[in-house]
Amino acid sequence: MGFKADIITLFPDLFPGPLGASIIGRGLDKGLWSLTATGLRDFATSKHKDVDDTPSGGGPGMVLRPDILGRAIDAISPQNDPRPRLLMSPRGKPFTQKKAHQLASGPGLVLICGRFEGVDQRIIEARNLTEISVGDYVLAGGEVAAMTILEAIVRLIPGVLGSSASSHEESHENSLLEYPQYTRPQNFEGLEVPPVLTSGDHKKIKQWRQAQSEAITAKIRPDLLSKKTD
Amino acid sequence: MGFKADIITLFPDLFPGPLGASIIGRGLDKGLWSLTATGLRDFATSKHKDVDDTPSGGGPGMVLRPDILGRAIDAISPQNDPRPRLLMSPRGKPFTQKKAHQLASGPGLVLICGRFEGVDQRIIEARNLTEISVGDYVLAGGEVAAMTILEAIVRLIPGVLGSSASSHEESHENSLLEYPQYTRPQNFEGLEVPPVLTSGDHKKIKQWRQAQSEAITAKIRPDLLSKKTD
Repeated sequence: MGFKADIITLFPDLFPGPLGASIIGRGLDKGLWSLTATGLRDFATSKHKDVDDTPSGGGPGMVLRPDILGRAIDAISPQNDPRPRLLMSPRGKPFTQKKAHQLASGPGLVLICGRFEGVDQRIIEARNLTEISVGDYVLAGGEVAAMTILEAIVRLIPGVLGSSASSHEESHENSLLEYPQYTRPQNFEGLEVPPVLTSGDHKKIKQWRQAQSEAITAKIRPDLLSKKTD
Repeated sequence: MGFKADIITLFPDLFPGPLGASIIGRGLDKGLWSLTATGLRDFATSKHKDVDDTPSGGGPGMVLRPDILGRAIDAISPQNDPRPRLLMSPRGKPFTQKKAHQLASGPGLVLICGRFEGVDQRIIEARNLTEISVGDYVLAGGEVAAMTILEAIVRLIPGVLGSSASSHEESHENSLLEYPQYTRPQNFEGLEVPPVLTSGDHKKIKQWRQAQSEAITAKIRPDLLSKKTD
């Protein structure tokens, strides 16, 4: 079957967009995962295809109506759908690499993209939506957040990355940031590749990289070191 | 002049993509900000337009060459360019709403999208690139991260959001997550809008929302409460 992603959005034409490019897009072409974007407006019933209304209690912006979103969810993800239903939201739990691994080994995802001031709270409870956040900032809508989450997950699906080794030594895989990388030319504007990397001594290279990872993490993200469990 | 964004990427055709939609796209059409995406491969010199090479010291993947990236940066952002140069990287400092506000009031941004295993460390130092991360996960490349950062920034540029009030009471603006929202219908599958919101008592509504914000933040993101400064 493979990993099946469904997106509910006011802008279905934005998909696959960046998810159609590079290794993620090649994985889509090869059928390693699938993507369907459904327009929320298709489920509106009013003449003007309204999907939102003013917030109860006042305030700026507009709120997505629970009845219309409910119809969209029910059409795409019936009650027995085993896939998690994620609502893109700055109020959600932070999305992490660990979560990406968990979701990549599952059956897929239903991603719901909010817009405007938010989504009626009752639909979150009635359809068991999990609010998830890609970071501590506010976007104009959930579409780019959904792309972020899918890109992080899909690259972990077996067969998507060319070399399966390539995801092992990178940032956030072991609570350490990645060591610095170098390539040709040997001399760039007077700056040389560190000699240890061209020494051919694999043990020393490994030690140097580990020490660099630890030093960079301590400098930039000391908070990650306290999360280190291995 | 307005906010001027330049992107260096292997996939210039992905832009504006989602940044051309909704209020962000309307801001682009109105000239409230500008966007230029430049293809890194235009600066390659080899017959096959290579932009990367194997990592010094071994390991999986490929590393972007400093000489080619350097030429691209120099063409787009000369030495006296006042705009910050951000490298999308899981090793970077986390991008936050506070940073979005700072950058939105500046002249613009140069965003550099990595791919493969990373970017040669020497170009980061030689061109004063600031590594920035959209979250604790790994993407296939920097393009979606660049879209994320621009979307968060551009919606804060005056005139982009319809109602200027609409960004004041939301998540991450005051280290509290936003209160729950409700709209019509009054009764949805037996669930009512909380009576306080239809009471017309503005003081009580404000108190209820504040209490909800605090309770939700304590439950989902207690870490944010310790950052609260106001």
